[in-house]
Amino acid sequence: MAQESRKPSCLVIGAGGVGVITTYSLFNAGLSEVSLVVRSDYEHVTKHGYSIDSCDYGTIANWRPHGVFKTAEDASTSGHFFDYVVVTVKNIPDGPKSGAVHEIVRPVVESNHQLDASRITCIVLIQNGLDIEKELLEHFDQHSYNLVLLSGVQLIGSTKNGPGNVVQKGQDRLSVGPFDATDLTATECAKKFVKLYSNEGHNIVEIESDVKHSRWRKLLYNAVVNPTTALAQLDATRCLKFSKDKTSTENCIWRPGMYEIIAIAASEGVIIDPKEMDFFLDFTRRILYKPSMCIDYEKGQLMELEVILGNPLKVANRNGVPAPTLTILYHLMTILQGKIKESKGLLHFDEEKMDTTSDLE
Amino acid sequence: MAQESRKPSCLVIGAGGVGVITTYSLFNAGLSEVSLVVRSDYEHVTKHGYSIDSCDYGTIANWRPHGVFKTAEDASTSGHFFDYVVVTVKNIPDGPKSGAVHEIVRPVVESNHQLDASRITCIVLIQNGLDIEKELLEHFDQHSYNLVLLSGVQLIGSTKNGPGNVVQKGQDRLSVGPFDATDLTATECAKKFVKLYSNEGHNIVEIESDVKHSRWRKLLYNAVVNPTTALAQLDATRCLKFSKDKTSTENCIWRPGMYEIIAIAASEGVIIDPKEMDFFLDFTRRILYKPSMCIDYEKGQLMELEVILGNPLKVANRNGVPAPTLTILYHLMTILQGKIKESKGLLHFDEEKMDTTSDLE
Repeated sequence: MAQESRKPSCLVIGAGGVGVITTYSLFNAGLSEVSLVVRSDYEHVTKHGYSIDSCDYGTIANWRPHGVFKTAEDASTSGHFFDYVVVTVKNIPDGPKSGAVHEIVRPVVESNHQLDASRITCIVLIQNGLDIEKELLEHFDQHSYNLVLLSGVQLIGSTKNGPGNVVQKGQDRLSVGPFDATDLTATECAKKFVKLYSNEGHNIVEIESDVKHSRWRKLLYNAVVNPTTALAQLDATRCLKFSKDKTSTENCIWRPGMYEIIAIAASEGVIIDPKEMDFFLDFTRRILYKPSMCIDYEKGQLMELEVILGNPLKVANRNGVPAPTLTILYHLMTILQGKIKESKGLLHFDEEKMDTTSDLE
Repeated sequence: MAQESRKPSCLVIGAGGVGVITTYSLFNAGLSEVSLVVRSDYEHVTKHGYSIDSCDYGTIANWRPHGVFKTAEDASTSGHFFDYVVVTVKNIPDGPKSGAVHEIVRPVVESNHQLDASRITCIVLIQNGLDIEKELLEHFDQHSYNLVLLSGVQLIGSTKNGPGNVVQKGQDRLSVGPFDATDLTATECAKKFVKLYSNEGHNIVEIESDVKHSRWRKLLYNAVVNPTTALAQLDATRCLKFSKDKTSTENCIWRPGMYEIIAIAASEGVIIDPKEMDFFLDFTRRILYKPSMCIDYEKGQLMELEVILGNPLKVANRNGVPAPTLTILYHLMTILQGKIKESKGLLHFDEEKMDTTSDLE
């Protein structure tokens, strides 16, 4: 009974533009104790707190969550059990091993397990892409660690501009649901998390009962428009219009690629209405927008290529679904990703030997 | 008989790194009167001549060809008949109309026709790509203008570094042949031009009896590797190595694209030995090289996209040959070309109306 009356505890890992607003939303709702792992801004935030300019919450100065940790290891040695571990870092399985999601959550999952093996640890992945839960399940025995995995699909226009400074321009819309729709415990956890996260009149948070469908649906845009804009280093609307008769990008790259996503999803039993393609295409016609892959590439940051394009193609290969458009986009993007890896020193090209060596392999 | 003893007259149009060495080769051979159209460097070249650092000819100071004209119009009003009109500008049919090859040669073709309608005007296109002669034949009646069209396929590493300054690093290798192999007059002209151009021990120039084959063969590389390097803004070797298992660029983009070129060529009766693919792939493995499309894109210059990729795809469509790899590369490259057009003010994107208007249409 004592446990029931205690507020649940949340740990947000990833203090970028998305993570900070996510943390603030939980904090502001007032139903949980919220801690944040702040790597690079730790000194600044412990001294001055955050300064936030938010379309959802207005102007906030010197704000600190209940807890601030420099690393997830520090959180794991704090003696706290974290009911919800909310991951808002980018998902780059082909990046440095220390940045893999299973490595990021491991200290807290282990410390939770040691503190109370009977209590549920609920991991909420607020991340793009497909099959992101599978990597976790490969590294943790879900039953023995008493893990629940939730999907968070978020639309938010939030950016960190310098230390401790976040500007949010788009309303936070979050869909939360169990990766495994048959898992009733997970469904309960999702409902609880929605309550913890909800700030009526400010953000929009809802239960997503069909996570598979919503993630495949979002790939219509992300797996096709995202790489095109990165390859062209151009917003999606210009990519649409700078084409043969202003139609070839749509008719010869995007729709073929989207139909491939529909076919791959169908091979997994997920039915996507082709009208959804028009929704996304209309969006690119109306709104001047540079997707995240394009922005990451321009900033020289690794892109979420594997979870957005690589994983759907693995499904395509497994199920024998042809995906020529996505395949070429993927392999072109792999070259771009390699270029970023080289610039970050993760991949070396020896101009004498004319070959690469990688720190990642 | 007087006409026979007079030296033939050549006019080279295009005074970039390639055009200047081409002009010097003709000049140095001493068998023709050679003039050059020098647009941007005209003042400098008439005053100081060219300064050339050439692997074929050594160091040359204050050199001038027999004639220097500021424009092809000026050449056309000089009273000279030009037996050979050698075009070394890039072939960009989707660029400004004034830069189309038929517009560039028109003044001289017309003045030649007026000076002596019975004498042959031989146009030598030292340019990349496919079907570049067709555009000319659409704009001039070959018979009434007494035109002969020759193909020049050149390998040369020559660059203009500032006004009147040219550095040539790779030996000039030129293959010259008639676009129409059945045209005996053209074959004769090609043989004559080879003699005019040959500098034994310096350059290598040879008759190309099968121009169609050599142009399709060169597309194996240019239509596939060229666009990939432009999209990645990376040399070809890194594009090869920055891939899944260091093989996916080769196996999932380049070889499929090359097989499509082989199939399209076959539909035109041109047989390309698949071993030629290995020749080009080995080249990318051995030599660190950035193809012209990549360099043009990086410099913000229009690329030879239509003659290298657009024209082969027109043939594919006409003959019903599937070319999915080349199609996607082409439409991605069209976006990049649009980006360059926008930066040059040839294409405008209105962010209010979310649409483009073009100065080129």
